[in-house]
Amino acid sequence: MSLQKISNIMAYISLDKTKKGMHSLLTFRPEIAQPLTTLMQTLMRTNVGLTMGERELIATFVSSLNGCYICDSIHGEVAQCLLHADFTLIQKVKEDYQEAPVSDKMKTLLTLAKSVQKGGKNVTEEQVALAKNSGATDMEIHDTVLIAALFCMFNRYVDGLGLESNDTVETFRERGKKIAEQGYNQ
Amino acid sequence: MSLQKISNIMAYISLDKTKKGMHSLLTFRPEIAQPLTTLMQTLMRTNVGLTMGERELIATFVSSLNGCYICDSIHGEVAQCLLHADFTLIQKVKEDYQEAPVSDKMKTLLTLAKSVQKGGKNVTEEQVALAKNSGATDMEIHDTVLIAALFCMFNRYVDGLGLESNDTVETFRERGKKIAEQGYNQ
Repeated sequence: MSLQKISNIMAYISLDKTKKGMHSLLTFRPEIAQPLTTLMQTLMRTNVGLTMGERELIATFVSSLNGCYICDSIHGEVAQCLLHADFTLIQKVKEDYQEAPVSDKMKTLLTLAKSVQKGGKNVTEEQVALAKNSGATDMEIHDTVLIAALFCMFNRYVDGLGLESNDTVETFRERGKKIAEQGYNQ
Repeated sequence: MSLQKISNIMAYISLDKTKKGMHSLLTFRPEIAQPLTTLMQTLMRTNVGLTMGERELIATFVSSLNGCYICDSIHGEVAQCLLHADFTLIQKVKEDYQEAPVSDKMKTLLTLAKSVQKGGKNVTEEQVALAKNSGATDMEIHDTVLIAALFCMFNRYVDGLGLESNDTVETFRERGKKIAEQGYNQ
């Protein structure tokens, strides 16, 4: 880490030292915090269609593709808690989701998420048809695309402002568990 | 356009035929509409730091880089109205912003936006230092990064769901003018 980033409290702009991760950004611009939090709570904290665990799995997968360490770590922990899964599941999805122990429907949705991560125009009619043939509803396809798009935003927000984390595996786990239990309106 | 897309009302999922552009997506999942609209209104409709016109210019630039025709067209019209500019300004920014008639500070912010569009990690300390040396505040840098990230989301949302438009230059102009005058809480 260079001197400039140290002087800027581990980001490109001056943030509240006492806050962690996204919370330091949300504190910087509090009027933005409310709609962003509501968006997360509405899209990620429902089991209608996709379960909360499946939503977090998509979020983690996209964050991993974007190389966003903070989002990948936190949402990986949330997904693991909500799916009652071993952490190797999350790793397998990130490494080769086609061979991971998830449903065929989830594989087709992860294909959509992967295309969205590259850019919206990478989604093809064939990919959507495969998802529908695997039983995905319009709502599940919609939510998959929006979750993938939303994390392309959050990943860019966090990394574009040079946010760094002094979290450890343990503190990520603790925060992930809290989100899994209590959601985003904390 | 293939038969499948025609049968799905110009998108990969079934949307309300009577709505246009983003409104057809917001109608599909109305509980998402409120936080997305509040986010747009809060981030794009203020002249504190960046002007509303400058915000829309960044949004248009990023949408153009993402090849999102609908967002590029609409926000280009909004930017043109708010900047009281000739449409050639928007075109010049998209083609070669370093040679466009915008301030040096705006050029450094467009460089940040261009990096964010590629991925958050493409933003460098040097790019941020150039923006600060040109007079950009932390708030302006924050808002530039978030606007660029936000449009990476909207562009993926629109194109990832295969949304197509039957708008003409005239209807884009009309809708852009309305947003410029009334904002996003319509």
